[in-house]
Amino acid sequence: MADIKQNYASNQSAIRELTVEFISSINSALDEGRSKEVIDLAKSLHYADLADLLENLGHARREELVEALRDSFNPNIFAELDEAVRERVIIQLGISRVAEAVADLQVDDAIEVIEELGEDKQSKILGSLPKNERALIEQGLSYPEDSAGRLMQRDYVAVSSDWSVGQTIDFMRDSEKLPIEFFDIFLIDDKHQPIGTVPLGRIIRSARSVKLFEIMRKHIKIIPVSMDQEEVAFLFRQRDLMSAPVVDAGVLVGVITVDDIVDVIHEEHEEDIMRLAGVGEEDDLYSAVIDTMKSRFSWLLIHLMSAMVAAYVISLFVGTIRELVALAVLMPIVATMGGTASIQTLTVAVRAIAMRELTPSNAYRTIGKEIAVGVLNGFIFAIIIGFIVYAWFDDSLLGLVIGLAIIVNLIVAGFVGSSMPIILQRLGFDPAVASSAFLTSITDVIGFYVFLVLAASFLL
Amino acid sequence: MADIKQNYASNQSAIRELTVEFISSINSALDEGRSKEVIDLAKSLHYADLADLLENLGHARREELVEALRDSFNPNIFAELDEAVRERVIIQLGISRVAEAVADLQVDDAIEVIEELGEDKQSKILGSLPKNERALIEQGLSYPEDSAGRLMQRDYVAVSSDWSVGQTIDFMRDSEKLPIEFFDIFLIDDKHQPIGTVPLGRIIRSARSVKLFEIMRKHIKIIPVSMDQEEVAFLFRQRDLMSAPVVDAGVLVGVITVDDIVDVIHEEHEEDIMRLAGVGEEDDLYSAVIDTMKSRFSWLLIHLMSAMVAAYVISLFVGTIRELVALAVLMPIVATMGGTASIQTLTVAVRAIAMRELTPSNAYRTIGKEIAVGVLNGFIFAIIIGFIVYAWFDDSLLGLVIGLAIIVNLIVAGFVGSSMPIILQRLGFDPAVASSAFLTSITDVIGFYVFLVLAASFLL
Repeated sequence: MADIKQNYASNQSAIRELTVEFISSINSALDEGRSKEVIDLAKSLHYADLADLLENLGHARREELVEALRDSFNPNIFAELDEAVRERVIIQLGISRVAEAVADLQVDDAIEVIEELGEDKQSKILGSLPKNERALIEQGLSYPEDSAGRLMQRDYVAVSSDWSVGQTIDFMRDSEKLPIEFFDIFLIDDKHQPIGTVPLGRIIRSARSVKLFEIMRKHIKIIPVSMDQEEVAFLFRQRDLMSAPVVDAGVLVGVITVDDIVDVIHEEHEEDIMRLAGVGEEDDLYSAVIDTMKSRFSWLLIHLMSAMVAAYVISLFVGTIRELVALAVLMPIVATMGGTASIQTLTVAVRAIAMRELTPSNAYRTIGKEIAVGVLNGFIFAIIIGFIVYAWFDDSLLGLVIGLAIIVNLIVAGFVGSSMPIILQRLGFDPAVASSAFLTSITDVIGFYVFLVLAASFLL
Repeated sequence: MADIKQNYASNQSAIRELTVEFISSINSALDEGRSKEVIDLAKSLHYADLADLLENLGHARREELVEALRDSFNPNIFAELDEAVRERVIIQLGISRVAEAVADLQVDDAIEVIEELGEDKQSKILGSLPKNERALIEQGLSYPEDSAGRLMQRDYVAVSSDWSVGQTIDFMRDSEKLPIEFFDIFLIDDKHQPIGTVPLGRIIRSARSVKLFEIMRKHIKIIPVSMDQEEVAFLFRQRDLMSAPVVDAGVLVGVITVDDIVDVIHEEHEEDIMRLAGVGEEDDLYSAVIDTMKSRFSWLLIHLMSAMVAAYVISLFVGTIRELVALAVLMPIVATMGGTASIQTLTVAVRAIAMRELTPSNAYRTIGKEIAVGVLNGFIFAIIIGFIVYAWFDDSLLGLVIGLAIIVNLIVAGFVGSSMPIILQRLGFDPAVASSAFLTSITDVIGFYVFLVLAASFLL
């Protein structure tokens, strides 16, 4: 026991974490050209942490480190790297070095690395792979992007359901080509179609003579190879699945495990949050300035066009504003309240649609609720703002006008903020993408119009 | 084989999905008082789908369904229900019925249900539980909210590392009280401290005489009971863990598996997206109108205060605006461009902080990049907007002034949008919460000020 503990202790301390201290020590080793120390430090990191380190370093520093690690570059790092960084590392290491690395990866990781590359690079890498592996990867790439087929692992254990526990255990002991980790054994019929699963725990706990179909779990979820990964993630979460068989035309071709799902959930969520803010998914810390600029440009342009409409509405009232310039002073308040309330509503609705909580069956109820919230907050803020404006400009009628405008504005925000994503979703658009620019535009335009038209009728 | 397949087929069709058709058939069964059919329909659903159904139904309808299911209410539904809906169902069913259900739940699920209840209800339910279960739940509740201790399952398999494979298999066959599902066996020392894990697959594939320490995985991540769940989720994702032991003062007390992590990731994401939009986490489709209103009120109030500052800035220039009322027309463009650009930057930064991509080591680089993006887009939009304004108002100087204001505005948006969340994070605040109101305020104020001050100096 004593040396196990020692072993354990030394192993624990050997796994370095990516800390500020670690980064500064690798930086100074690079500065002083102590390349042996650089390699040792990098090798002491888990590959996921090393990928983080590469992402964290500046461009020049990263190139130095990649160069130092060229001969000992762990292939798994590729699968962990952010896309933009990965592409630069691939260019630096060269296609033939990358092809070697891809050959060492699991098929699903290899597909993840290859799918983002240009066709040119893809075919070069594929060309240099062993035939068998190449076929598996090409088959994977033939499934649609973000589908179960891309996500699945090709290594699984499948046996006939009339095997006994003993037979299965012997098979697993003798077989050389089992997956590294697995939790469920799939039972298949004579057409290689999955009919149930047996968790390993049940195998261990059953007598050798028991037939697998006696202990199999029959209520299994079978995932078609073309199912979208978002749908797959929903199923896993809803049913608390650990793994599920993937079928192509009914035939078992792979397995998806819950740890793959963790990454999908992250990805899908990133999509949602980025789209709500009008940022492309590829726009992250690691993308080049010019790519980030482009990704933001189109969204800014759409918002500019919305703002032009709002400006046009105001231009209809220049006479009114010239006479009562306080209106210009107060317009940001109208815009801010409407914009904030509509973004709040929109976010709740988009989130609920993504979580499948907002469905046709409760759509009207949801819109009704948001309008009710708009009415309540509208009245409260009408009183608050009306009073402030009255106190500021000593003009009770102006206070009344802005109060009325705020009520209309918050009700519109509740109505449009909830109904627009629902309508977009029904029409087949992503509710997160299109909503926020139109939304602000609508609340701005209606808000300014109501405010200025009331002002023109009551105050002049 | 034949009847296995039949069995399988009937099982598949027995698992109903929650579809629009299903909802309408349960609705009509409720309408027509066919309570036997209601119960059958509800029972044909997986409990997670039944929970979704309860969430989806209107208040009155839900009460009818809960009443119909009172005697056959599956305890697992409680763990799946949204908090707001759960509370109403608990009130309807009554504490003693709920206590029965809690007694049937796994300890981690029971804690999830109980932790959200008021102290009064908590102690009533705890009081009616069997002593042993009560102690486990009370221990769980003693750990901080959102900690590993709340998340972990208490059922795990732990044996001494000098046991042989054969001994372990016999132990598992004989033991009555094993967890329903498990994938790893934990090896412990004589102080009940975890020193390694053995995946079940390795047990099955090894000869009976092999000692567990020979096949154990030594590089395990050990999770302290007080670790925040966000940290735990990060570890699981970073290390592709399937399960990890949880220790209290070094002693093994539970296990966290990756399927628990899936829910944590959802929760944490929901927090991020909601906070960015200024919505409370408890603000969802199912919360009452009054709760939603309150949750949004404070954020609207903060935005109102920001807007007041912007209004004050404008009020300093009433003379200028009165002379050149086109300025009032153009102000929404200035506000929209700055607001949109800063929210884009903020979202990328907040997301990167949450993903631990934005760290002290690349903070300056990130801010620098965002400023560069601001400069580029600033110049492009200055030209676009300057030209539009020149064409609209036939005033080249006005076009120049708004162009300059847009450049300043987008640079400020890039700088403030990236540096503010970094600073807030360093000061120990949640970068998502506080940022967006301040941000819009700062870009509005600076944008309006620069625009109006330039207009006052060049145009009058």
